[in-house]
Amino acid sequence: MIGRLNHVAIAVPDLAAAIATYRDTLGASVSAIVPQPEHGVDTVFVELPNTKIELLGALGEESPIARFLERNPDGGIHHLCYEVDDIVAARDRLKAAGARVLGSGEPRIGAHGKPVLFLHPKDFLGTLVELEQA
Amino acid sequence: MIGRLNHVAIAVPDLAAAIATYRDTLGASVSAIVPQPEHGVDTVFVELPNTKIELLGALGEESPIARFLERNPDGGIHHLCYEVDDIVAARDRLKAAGARVLGSGEPRIGAHGKPVLFLHPKDFLGTLVELEQA
Repeated sequence: MIGRLNHVAIAVPDLAAAIATYRDTLGASVSAIVPQPEHGVDTVFVELPNTKIELLGALGEESPIARFLERNPDGGIHHLCYEVDDIVAARDRLKAAGARVLGSGEPRIGAHGKPVLFLHPKDFLGTLVELEQA
Repeated sequence: MIGRLNHVAIAVPDLAAAIATYRDTLGASVSAIVPQPEHGVDTVFVELPNTKIELLGALGEESPIARFLERNPDGGIHHLCYEVDDIVAARDRLKAAGARVLGSGEPRIGAHGKPVLFLHPKDFLGTLVELEQA
C-alpha cells in the first residue's frame, strides 16, 4: 500500500541555523523559508536525489510543533510521510486493521496542496506517520 | 556533499510486531530478520520505491539501541543515513566545520558492508546522522 517516502520532517528551534547546517555543513540543496500559516509552521525543503527533508520551524503561538520542541529543544525527527495512491482507501484499510487516524479522520490539504492524514504514533512503532495522496 | 537518503532507521521493541505493522498494516515489502551480531542489532529492511526503512531490534545485552528503547518503549526513529561519495573527505569537511564525529572518528564497516560514520545529534538538529560511503 505505501509507496515512496515523500519526506522526513525535522522540527527545529531555529530555522536559520538549520538551513546553515544542511546547506553549509552538509552541502545539500536547500530552499528559502516557505511560511505555511494555515499549518502553523515555516518550512524549508532540503532536496536530496531520492527524497526530501523538510525542516519545520514553529509559526505562531498555536504551532502544532510547539510542544514537540519543548520536549526536544535541540530539534528532532517529527514525522515520516509516505505516499499512497488513494488516501481514502488507505484510511479505511488502516482503520479496519485497528490503527488510529488522528483528528477527524477526514483527509485535509497538506503543505504540498495534496490530501493528507496523520496516524497515531503508538500504532506505528513510536513514529508519527503522515500519508499523502501521490 | 550529502547524496541519497540511504535509509531511515526505526528502533523497535518487538521486531515480529514491527514486521506485521509494515507488511500487513502498511502493505510494504519487508525482508526476513537479518541478525547483525557485530552491530548488536537484528535488522529488517522495508523496501520502498525510493529508499529503505530499517527496523532495528536489540540483539545481545550490549546492544547500542538498548538505552534508546528504554527511553522510547514504543520504539522511535533512531537515525537517518545519508550517502556520501568519499567518507574520509566528508569527515574532514565536517570536522573542519566544527561538527563532532562519534567514536574514534575512523570509518567502520556498517550493516551494508560499506564504511560508515555517525555524527553527534546535538550538531545536527537533534538527529543522529549516519554517513555511508555510496
